[in-house]
This record gives sequence, structure tokens and C-alpha cells, in this order.
Amino acid sequence: MHRFKISELGRNVFWLQGPERDHLVRVLRLSPGDEIIGFDNSGAEYKAVVNTVGDHSVTCGILEQDYPEVEARTQVYLVTGLSKGEKMEWVIQKGTELGMAGLIPLRTKRAVMKLEGNKAKDRVERWQKICGEAAKQSHRVRESKVYPVADWKELKDLLPPTTQWIIPYENEKSMTLRSVLKEFNPQEPIAILIGPEGGFEESEVLLAQNTLQAQSVSLGPRILRAETAAIATLTLVLGYYGDLG
Amino acid sequence: MHRFKISELGRNVFWLQGPERDHLVRVLRLSPGDEIIGFDNSGAEYKAVVNTVGDHSVTCGILEQDYPEVEARTQVYLVTGLSKGEKMEWVIQKGTELGMAGLIPLRTKRAVMKLEGNKAKDRVERWQKICGEAAKQSHRVRESKVYPVADWKELKDLLPPTTQWIIPYENEKSMTLRSVLKEFNPQEPIAILIGPEGGFEESEVLLAQNTLQAQSVSLGPRILRAETAAIATLTLVLGYYGDLG
Repeated sequence: MHRFKISELGRNVFWLQGPERDHLVRVLRLSPGDEIIGFDNSGAEYKAVVNTVGDHSVTCGILEQDYPEVEARTQVYLVTGLSKGEKMEWVIQKGTELGMAGLIPLRTKRAVMKLEGNKAKDRVERWQKICGEAAKQSHRVRESKVYPVADWKELKDLLPPTTQWIIPYENEKSMTLRSVLKEFNPQEPIAILIGPEGGFEESEVLLAQNTLQAQSVSLGPRILRAETAAIATLTLVLGYYGDLG
Repeated sequence: MHRFKISELGRNVFWLQGPERDHLVRVLRLSPGDEIIGFDNSGAEYKAVVNTVGDHSVTCGILEQDYPEVEARTQVYLVTGLSKGEKMEWVIQKGTELGMAGLIPLRTKRAVMKLEGNKAKDRVERWQKICGEAAKQSHRVRESKVYPVADWKELKDLLPPTTQWIIPYENEKSMTLRSVLKEFNPQEPIAILIGPEGGFEESEVLLAQNTLQAQSVSLGPRILRAETAAIATLTLVLGYYGDLG
């Protein structure tokens, strides 16, 4: 059944507007009587029937409300150095499917891609749309949140103070991810710092360790591309706490 | 340091030929005296110095031989329904980085992409090249092996008889991946069956259970795209047995 993000929630109805309305009407060509599923980032899911189709809005009557246990209990964030081309999109899409809470795009020293001002805003908007589509695809009831593009010094305040930071680092030879996760509290947020294609500079790793108390970890002996490391670490963290597999 | 697949191994030397020779000479423009690393899929790694550059061959003198513990101890295979576009390439590239032993492209009922005869051979050759590049990128000493495109009935004989098969299946509600891995023997090969974009038909899942004794598993409540499921399951299996993270 087709899934839609609710624009406005009423008592026994909800409304779909803007791109959601257009998608229902023009692309899927649904009509009154058709059943759909709506979600609104609150954790609830609503089975509903299309009532009226208007020029700007579609009204849907709620048949059932549900709180499916589909979201990961562990709040895991990806904080990724800006990467070129489709890599950010790829990580954002798959990170959302897998169940990340959010992603912070990070300006780093070695990043080839620069994003500032309005260009950054537009890109974040586009990335948020990808989260929306991926959330629907994976039957999530919350979209992952894409944060504004951030600098290192802004990170500490973007996430809760109880956030536990991990920084996979190829120069880390002894500390395994597993040994760090053993000591973490899965009821508090976990944030994974991933460098851009060129990796982090050592000064950035030190900064993360000093200001965020980030634990540097090894992902094993094989070198992973940035986007592979992002998805693999997210998968391993969610898997460790039983939120995957 | 640049890594090359050895074409021929001698006593104190090795030779690079064909595309490896061309890459060294024309792209990287290395010359006598430059140091490189060679590997030959046996598990060994050779630090060497370029001796002579010929029109067809480059001779390298071996300085050091090493057996780096870079390969996964658990032999994990991906068996993936043919997918369209770049998805197979992504899975092959990232699967190799992560450490898979090999990948079998599988013809399935719902696969949109058809591959037969010479077209299949060429595609497999191209995929094998991707494994080669990804192996170098990740500092592996063995390439993952891409098998010829196979049908369901051929699978049993392609891998050792002790192979333990897993089939992530969205209709599996109770059996977690973790509970199955707990019972598996990591010293025997593990093969992961992933459907094409449309997933497996139920008859295919039954076939896998009956002829391969495949265990159907749930990856959790969120629906994953085929390529995400492939990489996530591989990551979770390698992670479970300590070969990642």
C-alpha cells in the first residue's frame, strides 16, 4: 500500500498537500475509496481511505492508527565529511533505510566539495527529500533528519550533550568498534564521524577526541571507502544493539 | 604505495604484464627505483622495487615478503539476483572492500535484467575487474571471485558442500540473523542469498530451503533495497564473527 507523509493531522482525518498531494493525484492516480498509509514523524502510522481530492489538498479518513515497532530504538547519527558526486545521496538513502536518526554534513579540511550559503541550503533540502523517499521505501514512520551543513566547532551543540561519539580511523590499530560499543549506553545517542574521500587530518581526529570525547576505533584491517565506512559502521552499531538483523 | 596484481612470480622477482604493466607505465609513470607492492591472490604481499620497464612487461625485484592478516577468516559469499544498472557494480565493489570471498550472480524469476551467453561472460569479466580495483583500494591480498552467472539448480555445486546458506526474506518474522549465526560454524563457508529488486518469489525461497537447507532470516522491521540488504547482511555476518569492527 502506498505511503505518504501527512501534511496536517485532524481528529479522524488527515490532509496531504503539496508534493504529497501531487504524487497521489498525478503520479499514482489514486481516487476516493482507495486505501493508503500515512505517517507523520511522530511514530504513528495511519491506515486511511482517500475521501476527497481537491486542487491543493487530499482529505483522507483514518481507519486505523498504529504504532508499528519499525524504528530503531538506538538513536544513531552519521556525521559525514562532504563527499563528491552521488556519494552523499547514496549514504543518505541507505542510512535512512537502515534506520539512522539523522545525518550531519560536515565541512572538513580534506573535503574537495565545498558547500556554503544558499547552495548548502538547497542541497540539504534535496537530501531531506531523499530521506523522505527512503523512509517510505523502508516503511519507517520517521524520516531521518538532515542537519544544516556544519563546521567542527558547531557539532557539540547540534546533538544532545549525552551523545557518545565514535570516529573510525585507519590509524587506530588496537581499539575495535565492538569493544567501544560494549561500554556505550544504547539509550543515549551515538554519533559516527566519517571523513571525506581523503579521510580526516590528524588534527581533526585530535579535535574530535578532545572536544567531543570521540573514541577512535578500527573497523578492521581492510581500508574502506568513505561511503562504505559510513554504511558499514551504521550497520554494525545498529546490529550490535539488536536494531538490525 | 601503489598496489599491483602480479602476473608472474619468480624467485626474487615478479613481473607485471598487460593492464597492470600499462597502468604502472602510462598512468602512474613509475620508473626503475620506485617502490611498489605486489599481491597474487595467495595471501602473500611483496614489497618490491621496479627494476626494468619493457614494452610488455615490468620486472620488479622483491625486497620483502609478507602475509598480512588482512583477509576475513570467515569465507562469506554473496549470491545476488541480477539487478539493473549500477547496483551490481556497487555491491561487487563494496562487497570486495568489506571482505567477501566471492559473489555469484543469480538468475531469478523476478529479475528484470537478463544475462546469457557472451553478454554474461563479458559482464562477469567486467565485474571481476571491479573486484580487482576494490581489492587494491582496500589493501586486500586476494580479490573476491565473481562466478559465472548461475541458475538456481547450479548453486549447490558451485560452493563447497559444507556451505551454510542464509536467505534474508521480508516475510520471515521471527528468525533473526543473529540467532542463525549463533548456530553456524564460521570455519565453514557462509552464503547469503539476496533477491533482485522485486525480491524472491515464495517458490524460490522454498527451493532454497529444500535444496540448500537455507535458513530464512529477518534483517529487522525496516524493508531494505536489494543492494542495501546485500551489503548490510555481509557486514553483519563479518561483524558477528569478528572480521569487521
